[in-house]
Amino acid sequence: MWNCPYSADLFAEFAENLNDINSSPSSLMLSEVAYSLGVTIIGGSIPERDASSGRLYNTCCVFGSNGELKAKHRKIHLFDMGKPLPGDVHFKESDTFSAGEKPTVVETDFGCIGIGICHDLRFPELAILYRARGAHLICYPGAFNMSTGEALWELEQRTRAVDNQLYVATCSPCRDSAGSYMIWGHSTVVGPQMGEIIGTTGHEETVLIAEIDYAKIQLTRDSFSLENQRRDNVYRFIDLHQESP
Amino acid sequence: MWNCPYSADLFAEFAENLNDINSSPSSLMLSEVAYSLGVTIIGGSIPERDASSGRLYNTCCVFGSNGELKAKHRKIHLFDMGKPLPGDVHFKESDTFSAGEKPTVVETDFGCIGIGICHDLRFPELAILYRARGAHLICYPGAFNMSTGEALWELEQRTRAVDNQLYVATCSPCRDSAGSYMIWGHSTVVGPQMGEIIGTTGHEETVLIAEIDYAKIQLTRDSFSLENQRRDNVYRFIDLHQESP
Repeated sequence: MWNCPYSADLFAEFAENLNDINSSPSSLMLSEVAYSLGVTIIGGSIPERDASSGRLYNTCCVFGSNGELKAKHRKIHLFDMGKPLPGDVHFKESDTFSAGEKPTVVETDFGCIGIGICHDLRFPELAILYRARGAHLICYPGAFNMSTGEALWELEQRTRAVDNQLYVATCSPCRDSAGSYMIWGHSTVVGPQMGEIIGTTGHEETVLIAEIDYAKIQLTRDSFSLENQRRDNVYRFIDLHQESP
Repeated sequence: MWNCPYSADLFAEFAENLNDINSSPSSLMLSEVAYSLGVTIIGGSIPERDASSGRLYNTCCVFGSNGELKAKHRKIHLFDMGKPLPGDVHFKESDTFSAGEKPTVVETDFGCIGIGICHDLRFPELAILYRARGAHLICYPGAFNMSTGEALWELEQRTRAVDNQLYVATCSPCRDSAGSYMIWGHSTVVGPQMGEIIGTTGHEETVLIAEIDYAKIQLTRDSFSLENQRRDNVYRFIDLHQESP
């Protein structure tokens, strides 16, 4: 949610209509940067207002190196707490946002990329589905908090990478000690072989440059194919929105 | 494989017939200990020879506090390497063993326990399936090696526990520096809330006593139900051997 303060009562005010990129200042800026530098951008997330339904979504836009909006991922798993544990902040994202209905895999100049937002990382099902659709890399923009961040942020990234033998990259806002929601930070890039950390940051604003070598995916799978070891006569996983090839 | 050396060419020699507990010295011993001490035993694994087919399985037996053999889990995911990575040992378990065809959940005096063996831990699908069948605890006897052990043993246990909001316990042989297969060790018990390590060991022979409080499972799920947040209109997971309730 990089275009606004991280505060539930402000998301509606900062929400943008993504149907027409010219009506979304955030998207327009990302598109121009992607085009002028010739790079692919997974543009974090912003609050989106759907023009027809008026509903709000937590949405990540992907721009190709020609500036084109290539994909729009609406967060599928909203972060809804039940009874708070002692010391925990209460948080119910579905009070504000509607949930996305479709997984997002996008073909880019830099391979096939699956997109998840924050809490989407907690669900092994989504990563399994992205692997099955051929993703080389799953990108999760996300803002874990201080307790889930320390315990789970790196853990889940590493497990998604090794369980699916692909790359995972996360991008978090940096920590703002003046904000009401304390963010863990620690943007990270993880490799497919042993969930190896290829690059990571602290909690302050910074730029991380990491090299990803997709050849390592095939090397890893050739040496040891978890895919072939799955037991489809014991369990089966159904991707309900898979388009026919 | 606690009744024999960990060596592929010896498993057949040490394999036991588990159809009749009296013909299996290992099972008979575990049964007698369970009965005489009034405890439940998840009895690691031994090579099993199926009496009718002659096939070998990597099998874990569970004994109730009355000495009864309550369940028999045949390892479902065999550890088959493809092309070895530089420095790696080649290993193809299916040259020796057949794969089990059924997940194992057993009702004990100490709750509902799902069983996996070693490489079964690498598959999120099996843990998802055990959670759906009501397991409070998943026990994985296993012998990860030095490279997978350091990188993945604790990682995978913690992720299975937090992703499914239940307990995970692993039991490994200790390391034998004279053996051909160097074992990581580090038997561990992990909790449901943050994949917290409740107890763990080093690589030497020892006894680990850890307290498990199943009330924490409900507390965790009440505060935050991953189960309710799963999206069964986006993906669906099918348990092909689920008996009707």
